[in-house]
Amino acid sequence: MGRDSFDERLDRLTGVLARMSRDAGTAIRQASVALLDVDRYAAETVIAGDLVLDRCRAQAEQMIPEVLVRHQPVASDLRLVLSALRIAAALERMGDLAAHIAKVVLMRHPVGVVPQPAVPVLAQMAEAAARMADKTTVLLATRDRLDAMQFGLDDDEVDAAQESLLSMLVSEWPYGVESAIDLALVGRYYERYADQAVNVARQIVDLDAGTLRR
Amino acid sequence: MGRDSFDERLDRLTGVLARMSRDAGTAIRQASVALLDVDRYAAETVIAGDLVLDRCRAQAEQMIPEVLVRHQPVASDLRLVLSALRIAAALERMGDLAAHIAKVVLMRHPVGVVPQPAVPVLAQMAEAAARMADKTTVLLATRDRLDAMQFGLDDDEVDAAQESLLSMLVSEWPYGVESAIDLALVGRYYERYADQAVNVARQIVDLDAGTLRR
Repeated sequence: MGRDSFDERLDRLTGVLARMSRDAGTAIRQASVALLDVDRYAAETVIAGDLVLDRCRAQAEQMIPEVLVRHQPVASDLRLVLSALRIAAALERMGDLAAHIAKVVLMRHPVGVVPQPAVPVLAQMAEAAARMADKTTVLLATRDRLDAMQFGLDDDEVDAAQESLLSMLVSEWPYGVESAIDLALVGRYYERYADQAVNVARQIVDLDAGTLRR
Repeated sequence: MGRDSFDERLDRLTGVLARMSRDAGTAIRQASVALLDVDRYAAETVIAGDLVLDRCRAQAEQMIPEVLVRHQPVASDLRLVLSALRIAAALERMGDLAAHIAKVVLMRHPVGVVPQPAVPVLAQMAEAAARMADKTTVLLATRDRLDAMQFGLDDDEVDAAQESLLSMLVSEWPYGVESAIDLALVGRYYERYADQAVNVARQIVDLDAGTLRR
């Protein structure tokens, strides 16, 4: 093990991040199925999967001493490792947010959370969030700077959808206050999920810049 | 600088954390003043202060290479540094959450966000959150394990207050859906603030355990 290079150990760490990114994408897709199809099983799967993501983050953090300790670290290595830790934290948070959506579904089950008029806007948020998760996974492999810059557009789409959801809730919402609060929160979870994906993309660019500097 | 010991450099890092903790406490107090007294100036102060907290976190992260680089790191040092980074992240997040409250106030200003019936429960959340921030600051200095365990009680108080706020909003709320959504979100920001304070307390205990192990 001592013969492994720093790069090999860093690759193992980024392997954990790639898995977390796939899992965070699966989580938001399943949370959206739970939400839009009123699927209790999907909701429970998301919540179980969140624990796996939590453990993966802990695993990533536990790898840091091993990545650095037998190596005389230079400042750029440490920056790389800090970026990796921030990515792990953001991906774990994405899993948390998917689980928050799933919990709202379970709390109201068997009643659905999304009345018909709100289905299109939630479906749009769901689709944009899932797309961002997929791009994150690809980006971890390619580290393409131009792809990373595209994240802002998807994020704007989610923010705009959240705005139109809130407008709908406050202007013409015959389904009651409880429903409006549920949907405002669910919309916010998608919005935060998208923000964290942007955060990951930004860190991946830093990770790449760090690699190039070395 | 090279002659500084690891411990001296770690002390400078924890000094930044202590400052961040005080600032996170000031932020939630001012956010609560903004909210309950409809004070635009207080809200703007919170938002400006949030940028300072963001910079302090970046400063804490930038100190890590210096803390570790001239030192042959052992696993327990790295764990200490990881705890310090998690504390910085949680304190920055507490600042973000106070700023989220301030932004709701500004969005509605000069109209107040909190109608009279909701004042007591919000005041209770505000007071518990401020108390937790103060305890965090003390805990960073004392690292008293028993004090850290008390955080759960304050957190339960905030969670219970959020529950009773939500019950109030869904059962007897004559102020409209927009008001209910604003308050549900504000309550959630306090709840998350308290969660992050618990998170900090847990990490401080780890920080201390790390120090004792060395």
